[in-house]
Amino acid sequence: MTKERLIYMPLGGAGEIGMNAYVYGYGAPDKERLIVVDLGVTFPDMDTTPGVDLIMPDIAWLEARKEQIEGIFITHAHEDHVGAVGLLWERLGAPIYARTFTANIASRKLQEKHLPDGIVKTVGAYPARTQVGPFEVSFAPISHSIPESSGLVIDTPQGRVVHSGDFKIDRTPVVGEPFDDDMWAEIAKPGVKALMCDSTNVFSPVAGRSEAELTDPLVELIAAQPAMVVATTFASNIARVKTLAMAGEKAGRSIVLLGRAMRRMVEAGLETGVLSSFPSVISPEDAQHLPRENLMLLVTGSQGERRAASAQLSQGKYLGLSLKEGDTFLFSSKVIPGNERGVIRIMNNLSEKGVDVIDDRGGLYHVSGHANRPDLKTLHEIIKPQMIVPMHGEHRHLREHVKLAAENGITGVVAVNGTMVDITGDEPQVCGFVETGRTYLDGSVQIGQFDGIVRDRIRMALNGHVVVTMIIDEHDEPLGDPWCETTGLAEMGRNNAPLVDVLEEDLSQYINRADDKTLLDDDALDKELRRVVRNSCQNEIGKKPEVTLIVSRLS
Amino acid sequence: MTKERLIYMPLGGAGEIGMNAYVYGYGAPDKERLIVVDLGVTFPDMDTTPGVDLIMPDIAWLEARKEQIEGIFITHAHEDHVGAVGLLWERLGAPIYARTFTANIASRKLQEKHLPDGIVKTVGAYPARTQVGPFEVSFAPISHSIPESSGLVIDTPQGRVVHSGDFKIDRTPVVGEPFDDDMWAEIAKPGVKALMCDSTNVFSPVAGRSEAELTDPLVELIAAQPAMVVATTFASNIARVKTLAMAGEKAGRSIVLLGRAMRRMVEAGLETGVLSSFPSVISPEDAQHLPRENLMLLVTGSQGERRAASAQLSQGKYLGLSLKEGDTFLFSSKVIPGNERGVIRIMNNLSEKGVDVIDDRGGLYHVSGHANRPDLKTLHEIIKPQMIVPMHGEHRHLREHVKLAAENGITGVVAVNGTMVDITGDEPQVCGFVETGRTYLDGSVQIGQFDGIVRDRIRMALNGHVVVTMIIDEHDEPLGDPWCETTGLAEMGRNNAPLVDVLEEDLSQYINRADDKTLLDDDALDKELRRVVRNSCQNEIGKKPEVTLIVSRLS
Repeated sequence: MTKERLIYMPLGGAGEIGMNAYVYGYGAPDKERLIVVDLGVTFPDMDTTPGVDLIMPDIAWLEARKEQIEGIFITHAHEDHVGAVGLLWERLGAPIYARTFTANIASRKLQEKHLPDGIVKTVGAYPARTQVGPFEVSFAPISHSIPESSGLVIDTPQGRVVHSGDFKIDRTPVVGEPFDDDMWAEIAKPGVKALMCDSTNVFSPVAGRSEAELTDPLVELIAAQPAMVVATTFASNIARVKTLAMAGEKAGRSIVLLGRAMRRMVEAGLETGVLSSFPSVISPEDAQHLPRENLMLLVTGSQGERRAASAQLSQGKYLGLSLKEGDTFLFSSKVIPGNERGVIRIMNNLSEKGVDVIDDRGGLYHVSGHANRPDLKTLHEIIKPQMIVPMHGEHRHLREHVKLAAENGITGVVAVNGTMVDITGDEPQVCGFVETGRTYLDGSVQIGQFDGIVRDRIRMALNGHVVVTMIIDEHDEPLGDPWCETTGLAEMGRNNAPLVDVLEEDLSQYINRADDKTLLDDDALDKELRRVVRNSCQNEIGKKPEVTLIVSRLS
Repeated sequence: MTKERLIYMPLGGAGEIGMNAYVYGYGAPDKERLIVVDLGVTFPDMDTTPGVDLIMPDIAWLEARKEQIEGIFITHAHEDHVGAVGLLWERLGAPIYARTFTANIASRKLQEKHLPDGIVKTVGAYPARTQVGPFEVSFAPISHSIPESSGLVIDTPQGRVVHSGDFKIDRTPVVGEPFDDDMWAEIAKPGVKALMCDSTNVFSPVAGRSEAELTDPLVELIAAQPAMVVATTFASNIARVKTLAMAGEKAGRSIVLLGRAMRRMVEAGLETGVLSSFPSVISPEDAQHLPRENLMLLVTGSQGERRAASAQLSQGKYLGLSLKEGDTFLFSSKVIPGNERGVIRIMNNLSEKGVDVIDDRGGLYHVSGHANRPDLKTLHEIIKPQMIVPMHGEHRHLREHVKLAAENGITGVVAVNGTMVDITGDEPQVCGFVETGRTYLDGSVQIGQFDGIVRDRIRMALNGHVVVTMIIDEHDEPLGDPWCETTGLAEMGRNNAPLVDVLEEDLSQYINRADDKTLLDDDALDKELRRVVRNSCQNEIGKKPEVTLIVSRLS
């Protein structure tokens, strides 16, 4: 009889920051009963995923083991943890467990996909626990930047595992429960086998600051501004939205929320009672009748997104409101690597309007929602796990986190997406690798990262596209000359002749020379015409384009 | 008779950082004799310029006034100042003036384009001066990060203008002349009408540090590493290349240069005598026979460029050298906004190899080559100009620099690319706007920013591409059914039927229903087929693709 084992495997979120999806299993090898922790998304970019709408983990491995899945546990309501539930749920089919606020957000996502009610089970916080198969799971409140963020305490026949979720050590967190040292000590008491731990800020050497420390500097800043103040942050950073709104109110301003995500998040917060002391807000219409110096707008688009409120305000009107010389625009957020250009574009648009921009340079108006290096050490020391498996980080973060654990005398292992780790014994043992990757939501369909579809788009963007059409008649003779259409290529070549003319001339010459055998052989003809087009383009404009050939045989 | 005037106009570099190109003119309106200062390039990105090789200023305005151009002055040999001379010189035709090292680099670029010798005139430093038309121009040495960087002292019938060029205030700059307070005071003495001034670091609040301050921390760092050390920076930051090489040598290591740009720059420096005390280097072949702890590689690719030495080393071998666990990789450079993802990719590759990465987080191993805010103030105070026109900056930098000038009681104006400023009087007067933009080197041809070519590429990348072919016979009847080829689109639609089949079916149905009038009318048919394709795709896969229609009429 094969021995039962306890396994951990990330399918997303380890080796990257984003699209978190972690699997725990207990049972005989490949017969394990499974739970899934988080089902998040990450966002596309023009460099690697042009035209893609959303990116989620490839869950083929889980789908093939659908019957083994006992439940899906969502730690908190950020998109990189909950964003894929609507898109992926049908392929997994297990109940979703979450606390009230997270459950509200998850349910909205399932509703959007017209999935039935009742999939999401709302559960209470630690010490409440949910039994699913061989696991008992409890949501232990932990401070982050959105209400009801939780770590998971997962009890198994092989002992207790703690999954930190996203966290910081904040004892005055503005929203959500404060970090509770006593509760975590109590959780640690029976002994913890493994800590799966957030690694985002392992390179930040100084202990993190509390969200509450931002209020006074913000009130001071906002009160000092002569005209309208606009502040942007992630809508999902509800802590910051609330901090900003309260600071605005204290500075004597009326608060306006702009951007769908901003209004939705605050709505969900109020609906579930987790945002009870949020200042009252006024509508954009009402705001137009107030003096500018009495207004503070809280807007979406802190990452420079082209269609969000920040970008729109930087270029013109948004819901009747517009910016003027003397207004102030505050970025109360970090720029995620890759988004710098978009943010800078907005800053320059604002500069053109005479709007003063304040960003996070001084660290006065933003704190991170993740634990810095000393705070990670604090958690290690409280939990005292037998082993640490870093998660929620790129490879460099995971590796550094293992080093940090070693400094504290705790064994650890770097486990990137697809790495199956056996944590049954005293040391983590890598026991397998699963092919993983990314699934793209592309328009309304899901496509695979390696399907070649996005690769073809990138190639067209880099190289341009030539379409060649030719007709071959019933007697296997060319009917007329081949002709070309180009997209994304210079119209004139090096001799100031139209590129299309040169291509058609070269193709005609080739066809006239070609032997019957080639003309009869689709593959050979395809290969030769492609070669002619690419060589001509290289000569004329120095580029080798993508080529689509359409040979119509009238037979 | 129209009064003569002195004008300034940026064609590149003002409203952006990169592709510097500034024009000064003196004479009757639109009859001015002109000089050009710098002809630089900037670099493409996937977001806005996929497939483009280089970006340079649109010089159509200058080209139309070719006969009025007296000379082209290149302040220093960085690509954003000299990179376009080979590409644009033929359209301007005037002599190029530069100091020895810059002239060497400029000449290489002209040679690459097979332009005749003798175009580049090597000139000496201030107080040497060159008379061209109504201008007397002198290259005044100023500290930056490449040898022989110079500001220009431009004497005109309307007085003296100082063009700062790129600069920092560094009295121990490692390469190039130290900042010379006395010389600049002497230049200022007769009175300076206008200072055109570098704005890059106007938001950096603390005075800049000298390049020389890096040596000790670098020696200490390098000496402490147990195995191979690799350091990357911009090859064109010759000061840093030299600082790193000297630190490596002091730490007892042999220096290897990797990457074409790195070797070229050092070569040019040695050839012109400006790098005389550069440590001797060994070849990659010889390096393979030395112990790793005695090696220091200086490599290209600090911005994450995919084909440069850093990226290649992070993934495998490069010229026989490869990285191993225990090696150290130092980024001694700033990441230019937009390049973060590429740099992070390299850092993670290195992490997978067990290589330790050290970046600029602490500010110990990098200083900027541009003047910070207090240093700008220092230059303002030395030069005491009547007016300041900020350049070399995005809009937000220019605007902030005008504010800084105002704090010092100096009048200024924001003049972005294409803004013509009359500086004849006591105050800068905007006297016109010229249509400007960007010219792309695309393969081997130059195309315009607004030609629509790159826009089409971006659209194909975002939306995919469908090609529809149909044949209409001699009797104006469809010959067979239309058929489709798709590129960059999902193969299966929402009903699990091949997208191409659905499209062809919908097109056939449309054709069967279409009236003769539409079939005879190319424009109407085009419009309708396009509509059918886009609607079907929207239904099937939720995307509206780009469509190329090829209707062949056998008549």
